[in-house]
Amino acid sequence: MASTAVPSAAQETDLDTVRSRIEEALTDFLDARMRTLGQAPHHQLVRCVREFVTRGGKRLRPVLSVLGWQAAQPRRDMPMPVLKTAAALELFHAFALIHDDVMDDSAMRRGHPSVHRTMALHHAAAGGPAPGRVGIGAAILAGDLALAWSDELLHTAGLRPAQLTAVLPLIDVMRTEIVCGQYLDLTATGRPDAGVEVALQVARYKTAKYTFERPLHVGAALAGAGEELQSALSAYALPVGESFQLRDDLLGVFGDLRQTGKSVLEDLRDAKPTVLLATARERATTRQRALLDHLVGQRGLDEEGATRVRRILVETGAVNAVEAMIAECHQQSLQALDAAPITPHARTALHHLADTALWRST
Amino acid sequence: MASTAVPSAAQETDLDTVRSRIEEALTDFLDARMRTLGQAPHHQLVRCVREFVTRGGKRLRPVLSVLGWQAAQPRRDMPMPVLKTAAALELFHAFALIHDDVMDDSAMRRGHPSVHRTMALHHAAAGGPAPGRVGIGAAILAGDLALAWSDELLHTAGLRPAQLTAVLPLIDVMRTEIVCGQYLDLTATGRPDAGVEVALQVARYKTAKYTFERPLHVGAALAGAGEELQSALSAYALPVGESFQLRDDLLGVFGDLRQTGKSVLEDLRDAKPTVLLATARERATTRQRALLDHLVGQRGLDEEGATRVRRILVETGAVNAVEAMIAECHQQSLQALDAAPITPHARTALHHLADTALWRST
Repeated sequence: MASTAVPSAAQETDLDTVRSRIEEALTDFLDARMRTLGQAPHHQLVRCVREFVTRGGKRLRPVLSVLGWQAAQPRRDMPMPVLKTAAALELFHAFALIHDDVMDDSAMRRGHPSVHRTMALHHAAAGGPAPGRVGIGAAILAGDLALAWSDELLHTAGLRPAQLTAVLPLIDVMRTEIVCGQYLDLTATGRPDAGVEVALQVARYKTAKYTFERPLHVGAALAGAGEELQSALSAYALPVGESFQLRDDLLGVFGDLRQTGKSVLEDLRDAKPTVLLATARERATTRQRALLDHLVGQRGLDEEGATRVRRILVETGAVNAVEAMIAECHQQSLQALDAAPITPHARTALHHLADTALWRST
Repeated sequence: MASTAVPSAAQETDLDTVRSRIEEALTDFLDARMRTLGQAPHHQLVRCVREFVTRGGKRLRPVLSVLGWQAAQPRRDMPMPVLKTAAALELFHAFALIHDDVMDDSAMRRGHPSVHRTMALHHAAAGGPAPGRVGIGAAILAGDLALAWSDELLHTAGLRPAQLTAVLPLIDVMRTEIVCGQYLDLTATGRPDAGVEVALQVARYKTAKYTFERPLHVGAALAGAGEELQSALSAYALPVGESFQLRDDLLGVFGDLRQTGKSVLEDLRDAKPTVLLATARERATTRQRALLDHLVGQRGLDEEGATRVRRILVETGAVNAVEAMIAECHQQSLQALDAAPITPHARTALHHLADTALWRST
């Protein structure tokens, strides 16, 4: 490990301040929507999106966006337009998660039933027909609404025309990238033979670019950052993001439901295209591979089956290999950070963020 | 009927010119996407959206948007930024239709299998697991991609900052409205007792506002139109839009598959909340209502059952009542048009559009 995993109290407070300012911007926007739409014909959808967003989440994308802004100019304050733009990324993320859960038919999110499950229950309770179908439809619409709000918050953030013009193309690219990553994920899910390369590609599009690189770029663009600075941020963001996903994959199989809010069986039941599983499959003996192919993807996989999979993941050395990849990416990102032409303050915060993002348990 | 249903050749040519210029703008954008993304990992999704958009459609929203522009300023030419903004509305519409078809599980669209059905077939042909689930996921993503492109086309249309600032809030409102309308539709579908008021509300949000009012507003906003002009356009657009939906409902039950590209059984099988059905149910005798409630909403409804429903729709006077509503809305919209402070050229075109939109067979 290149750096200490224990954050200093000062760094923690700093990121906490960023987070709480973002939270304020989000809450202000959502409360205003509730005031104008709380009695609208689709008020249930409005409430549902609000609840989903306020229920928690790491706020990683908005935090990175604010850090991108701080990286590119010396001011330490956080102007409202910057915070609102950052908060818009969180609403965009709500859209992505809600639609993801429909596609994966995930039962849980953030420790609660996923949106399509919740909406199906509402509809059934009101005596409506076909609650399953209506739940899916309502979740698609809830995601669409979160996306519409994301744009609205961005458009009303009070950006100067030059800022808006700099940010919009980044948002456009980000959208195409997340759709691409999700499509790769969707079509490779359930195919344990998809391989390490496809799993890495999913991680790059869905996490490295979408979660880390683009939010940093958006924040830096608000400060007028040029090509050189943006490239330096990419050099940091892509390895952190890739290994963030690798950590997620490990937690998805070895994590604790109480901490992650997601079942540790779902990734295995769905046969998600993860580097962890693909690596294990590559390194497995014939017997181990046959067992993996039998167990991974079983809709009814139980804790006992999962334990057998976990044992193979460890025995093949896949877990160690993935941990080594995470450590190497971590190193790479810190080296890129050292070389980046950014403010010392942002450098410290991004260093700290890489540490906590990669050595976490939730 | 307030006005002749037979368009003059000159009017037809004029709208045809608008349509073909819009078509060019759309094709240019989609071809450029194919060049950059035709080999991308998600190229199948890219092709799918392109095919869906180029396969046809009335281009009603972009045409109205161009007419909104022509209404608000004396120039008869169509600058590229105006055409691109108009074309962006068509990409937005592709998003709405693709997601709609998922929610309704519609088998057909524009005479071809709907996107989720097509993508399921692709995936099955490639030997992928769970094609039904993957088809739905891929269609959600195809819709999301069409939406991302819609924004991209708008953002790169070459609008001046003042134009962009005028248009973005309208697009934001339009999105919230279409989501709201779709949610009302979704939750009322399959409930034949939903009533005329709910059916009218769906028609207002999904068609009157989304299809007619907002596109006109967007075009007019590009020309710097103020409150008064926008209100005058609303006074024309809302009755036309409402009755356009009423006509759609009639065609959805009495139309010709070969002309509409949609099955005339689906609306009945799904028990869509239409003014036509709600009116029939209100006017029905006890026996007729029992029969309607028995037949409408049957997944296996056949042509014979549909014929019985059609007979009730006629016998209760519901068909005549809806035709009368259409005629009245048509009158209202023409009166509003006469009073509107718009260019004579746009007035003629909008008059013609109201005629053909309400007295059509597809």
